[in-house]
Amino acid sequence: MALTSFAEPEQKPKLNAMDRLEAAFADGLAEVNALIIERMQSPVGMIPDLASHLVRAGGKRLRPLITLAAADLAGYKGDAHYKLAATVEFIHSATLLHDDIVDGSPMRRGKPAANTVWGNAPSVLVGDFLFARAFSLMVETGRLRVLDILAGASSIIAEGEVRQLAAIANFDTDEQEYMEIIEAKTAELFASAARVSAVVADLPHAKEVALDRYGRELGLAFQLVDDALDYAGAQSKLGKAVGDDFREGKITMPVAKAMQKSSTEEHDFWIKVFRKPTRTNADLQHAMSLITKHGGVQATLDQARTHIANAKSALQIFQPGKTRTLLSDICDFVVERSF
Amino acid sequence: MALTSFAEPEQKPKLNAMDRLEAAFADGLAEVNALIIERMQSPVGMIPDLASHLVRAGGKRLRPLITLAAADLAGYKGDAHYKLAATVEFIHSATLLHDDIVDGSPMRRGKPAANTVWGNAPSVLVGDFLFARAFSLMVETGRLRVLDILAGASSIIAEGEVRQLAAIANFDTDEQEYMEIIEAKTAELFASAARVSAVVADLPHAKEVALDRYGRELGLAFQLVDDALDYAGAQSKLGKAVGDDFREGKITMPVAKAMQKSSTEEHDFWIKVFRKPTRTNADLQHAMSLITKHGGVQATLDQARTHIANAKSALQIFQPGKTRTLLSDICDFVVERSF
Repeated sequence: MALTSFAEPEQKPKLNAMDRLEAAFADGLAEVNALIIERMQSPVGMIPDLASHLVRAGGKRLRPLITLAAADLAGYKGDAHYKLAATVEFIHSATLLHDDIVDGSPMRRGKPAANTVWGNAPSVLVGDFLFARAFSLMVETGRLRVLDILAGASSIIAEGEVRQLAAIANFDTDEQEYMEIIEAKTAELFASAARVSAVVADLPHAKEVALDRYGRELGLAFQLVDDALDYAGAQSKLGKAVGDDFREGKITMPVAKAMQKSSTEEHDFWIKVFRKPTRTNADLQHAMSLITKHGGVQATLDQARTHIANAKSALQIFQPGKTRTLLSDICDFVVERSF
Repeated sequence: MALTSFAEPEQKPKLNAMDRLEAAFADGLAEVNALIIERMQSPVGMIPDLASHLVRAGGKRLRPLITLAAADLAGYKGDAHYKLAATVEFIHSATLLHDDIVDGSPMRRGKPAANTVWGNAPSVLVGDFLFARAFSLMVETGRLRVLDILAGASSIIAEGEVRQLAAIANFDTDEQEYMEIIEAKTAELFASAARVSAVVADLPHAKEVALDRYGRELGLAFQLVDDALDYAGAQSKLGKAVGDDFREGKITMPVAKAMQKSSTEEHDFWIKVFRKPTRTNADLQHAMSLITKHGGVQATLDQARTHIANAKSALQIFQPGKTRTLLSDICDFVVERSF
């Protein structure tokens, strides 16, 4: 009888890998969140207002959690990793504030983007403020190599973003170029987020490189999935509109995959649609139908899974244990998160 | 006979203090310029294109020259000061790129501003790139205190800029608020430019503080004069349009001075004109006539001269000599430069 099913004891929902990672490092994350709130303060009220709109409210704190988990994997016993995790989140937040200006995105994580609420000028300046505060936090760790790694990552991120700008509506953007762009703009920070924990824990070079590799491969997968979701995600889950990349004229992997297999007629569509100053909903529908026809989303996800396998393999240099398993499981979660 | 004057031997033009400072540190400045060009390179061509538009072409290199001269005054014998001077110029350049977006200024140093040529997006990102490269340069000096000082300065600069945004068309902005804003947005970098040389030279604390004080007071005077020039400068000399601050709705010291002495009718004009979304040339003419009537430019310059006196007095802790004289003379030059 159908009705009885309502009376059955409710099953406790199984925690996903993200929930388990958060739970395992809940105390550390609370320290990091407290630091984030403390260090975004300023007597200039607009700064904490705008920063908290972005930093407090949203986001999964995936990057700082990677820093915390990597520190644990490295056997680190100090407290510099809280500052490093807050640093990583500040750099991430600063780049988000600036990206929203660059992209002209009206929304961020399902809420109006800061530049929509306050305008471009405060978003530029508060991004600069968070970036500067990130460096002050790093100084407090007393480790020049940490500053070296994250200053280097920050210039690589900016290079990646500029390169992406130059690639907009450029049909010579091939897969290699696309992969280099996402390695710079996304994977570099994931790599650094993991690597800096190895530095403060004074791990041998091979393990430091392994944590960099782990973060880098995870970051590549993360961005590939993000780009796939732009053509396949459910808006409510993702908090961003489907087709954002398409509307902004960005040629991402699902499009590149579909273009490779396109007929002459289809190729003409892609050229024409990306040369237009703006793209309509009808354009998006047609683009999505071509991507589906040629399996562009699936091929992008397959590629993400390759990087996930690399990320997991990089962890093998560490002893098995709970944290290694969590870091491994988060890889699968990143690929499966919204499909 | 008037004609004979043409036949008189041409007098060698007397070098001003800026020329003399440049000449005294020409070798060091060549090292700094080479570093600047080297470190703004990137395989992403738009970055050096845009950065060189700003960094190579223009500017007097006043801030890096202060760093070089301060290092000499401190008896420093190493070569970290070249990197510090390049760092200071990179941070200055990054803030200029971002300020032009914030202000919507079409011109910078008599040329189209970078955001006018390339758009806002590359200006945001190249600013970030230069800022990140500045931190990488500092790491190479191996001195955490240098990073601490310049990271702190960078967040104070951003705070000052945000505070200035909030003060636009705010008639409660009093002189103290104005002075705090210019100390943050301008004087802090001058102070740090001088102070970091004391740090690498391992000067005793009192001398480090004296160099900070020197730069800070010079920076305050520099900005006061800049704001006076906005209502009094000759466009050709300054490379920026007269009345820029007025058009952007910024209430600077010459206006604040004129407002203090204004009749009821004049006060109404100020309120009305700054509440308008835009200001006409006729508005500017009337504003300038009121500033002239109440001696607003003169009062601003008098205040600048007070800070110049403080800057010179801060140098007294150092032994007399050529470099101390140059640093002292540059103070007078800053106030007299375009009047």
